[in-house]
Amino acid sequence: MACDFYHLATPGVQGLHPYQPGKPVEELERELGISNSIKLASNENPQGPSQIAMAAVQAALGESCRYPDASGFKLKQALSAHYNIAADTITLGNGSNDVLELIGRAFVVPGDEVIYAQHAFVVYMLVAQSTGATAVVVPAREWGHDLDAMAAAVTDKTRLIFLANPNNPTGTWFTGQALREFMAKVPDNVVVVLDEAYLEYVAEPEYLSGLQLQADFPNLVVTRTFSKAFGLAALRIGYAVANPTITDLLNRVRQPFNVNIPALEAATAVLGDTDYLTRSVALNHSGMAQLEQGFTQLGVNWIPSVGNFISVDCGRDAAPVYAELLQKGVIVRPVANYLMPNHLRVTIGLPEENSRFLTAFTEVMKQQSGRTSTP
Amino acid sequence: MACDFYHLATPGVQGLHPYQPGKPVEELERELGISNSIKLASNENPQGPSQIAMAAVQAALGESCRYPDASGFKLKQALSAHYNIAADTITLGNGSNDVLELIGRAFVVPGDEVIYAQHAFVVYMLVAQSTGATAVVVPAREWGHDLDAMAAAVTDKTRLIFLANPNNPTGTWFTGQALREFMAKVPDNVVVVLDEAYLEYVAEPEYLSGLQLQADFPNLVVTRTFSKAFGLAALRIGYAVANPTITDLLNRVRQPFNVNIPALEAATAVLGDTDYLTRSVALNHSGMAQLEQGFTQLGVNWIPSVGNFISVDCGRDAAPVYAELLQKGVIVRPVANYLMPNHLRVTIGLPEENSRFLTAFTEVMKQQSGRTSTP
Repeated sequence: MACDFYHLATPGVQGLHPYQPGKPVEELERELGISNSIKLASNENPQGPSQIAMAAVQAALGESCRYPDASGFKLKQALSAHYNIAADTITLGNGSNDVLELIGRAFVVPGDEVIYAQHAFVVYMLVAQSTGATAVVVPAREWGHDLDAMAAAVTDKTRLIFLANPNNPTGTWFTGQALREFMAKVPDNVVVVLDEAYLEYVAEPEYLSGLQLQADFPNLVVTRTFSKAFGLAALRIGYAVANPTITDLLNRVRQPFNVNIPALEAATAVLGDTDYLTRSVALNHSGMAQLEQGFTQLGVNWIPSVGNFISVDCGRDAAPVYAELLQKGVIVRPVANYLMPNHLRVTIGLPEENSRFLTAFTEVMKQQSGRTSTP
Repeated sequence: MACDFYHLATPGVQGLHPYQPGKPVEELERELGISNSIKLASNENPQGPSQIAMAAVQAALGESCRYPDASGFKLKQALSAHYNIAADTITLGNGSNDVLELIGRAFVVPGDEVIYAQHAFVVYMLVAQSTGATAVVVPAREWGHDLDAMAAAVTDKTRLIFLANPNNPTGTWFTGQALREFMAKVPDNVVVVLDEAYLEYVAEPEYLSGLQLQADFPNLVVTRTFSKAFGLAALRIGYAVANPTITDLLNRVRQPFNVNIPALEAATAVLGDTDYLTRSVALNHSGMAQLEQGFTQLGVNWIPSVGNFISVDCGRDAAPVYAELLQKGVIVRPVANYLMPNHLRVTIGLPEENSRFLTAFTEVMKQQSGRTSTP
């Protein structure tokens, strides 16, 4: 009998869900017989990439035979100057997904406990699972992190805590004061990872980046990405900011060439393109208002969001709503896997994309509401 | 007292060597006060990237806000057609370093044994170390893998064996017949990883790709890269070919967006640019002859290589030779960390780069030989 390779895998990996490859939009359109679909499914920046960043990529294409600078020297210098952080506190990643994984692999062994919130970003669960940790999922409060309950969940076995501020897919957030109180309760041998992927969109005065608290709490690791407000999702670049000892450990685990040259060049350039960031945020705020207004008119509920997306409550199983929207060429994200079976997560798009979504969503909701009332 | 974060890391990670960030060439030139240096240090393709591949990258830059296709649909279709392999046997990686790591993380838990050869590519050691495995390093035979001794080193605890054909940094290789005999000796519950990063350069008729043996040995995993003969090191793209069960496991561990859009586009395009590959190989063969002739004239020994690099024996500690070459603006690779303290690994460059290296190397060797004879 042939060897059963599945059972040769580590217990953590055996427990991971089999990978479900998504289809490219072009394939999907071909299958559905549609065209001109719009994708509001992946919290991508709708305005297209920064032209300054793309010029930097283009200027470096001739070097595509060469390996990237393994230390990310130029980008670290740029981040250091831009955010006033020391270069030896920065770990570059192939997207922030990469640094989230590096943290798990640096600190977690099978049997350790990893805490995160209900409805939190799925990568925290994947990191816990693949490292063989015990996941401790703390129930949400009004869709957001219950920080008191999360602090209370810490045990002797807790090694990592993942926080997201704001959180995806709920769009919820917590104040700087709440974060400070939370950190004061957590023992300093527990590493707290604060995922700030959507930070740039937040306009709340009481919001505070974790960078401001790292002097007081050296066990606080902040992760960020260039995939959202900076519009570079295709190129894969994110980073962690942590005390130099943790940074040294993460860089031991990191593949030396984990970040490609186009990503290094584009990220360095886009930090200087302040107009781009301003437009990203402005477009998002007006688009958010547009969707909220549409939802109000339609009489549906949503979770107030400070991200570049909004989760709307269909008032019933969202799966058929998702499927009907797809037929109309509008791709959004079902979030049943986040234990939110009635919600759909909609990325804020361009004004015309938001309109098209609202029109389609209104049609589907009225149609389906008609259907369900038929005996 | 502040928490000692170092001791919070997993035992494997604590044992990894601290990361030594290399300096970009521009920084190095500034420090040394030199310019126009040539880099023959990283086994990069000297001819510059494929113009067809770069055009494909450029055409996709407008999509840089979007996430890559997580399934790599188009590239897998292209690989499948090009090499006559099924799409469900392919795992895409952020360089082949990434797939080598995925294999380690999928199969190895602390205490397992991982076998590789003395002088073998350093990533195998890093994978063993970071997963907490016990590394079993089998002494080389004439700088190459001793396959008989490697097969004999298998125990009940062996989970993985890494082979490189050809091997970096020695450039040694083994025949298809030797590989077949080796696989026949290895139990089928031991995963054998065959790294074929330099395959395209090999012209030996008795060489055989592991792809030809996978039907007989489902525990044989082949890894490949686009960083060498295909000239895309900057973009980070490699892949594994394995039976569908192993492929499914690797894709569970893989970060969904591990491969960026420029890499996916360029790799798909370069597979069709057969002229580029032909030029890569021709340039390498003539450059190899050029270096061998120079070494012969100088009266130094080298390890015969079928890769795009050659390790030359300085006949004494190579570190000062490396340093003197650096002063002359010629960057090569010292390989003392591969237990080859007297060798320097030189990447085959363009004809004029090879000449410049040979001139500088000749000067340094004669000068240093003069020095050592001075009392």
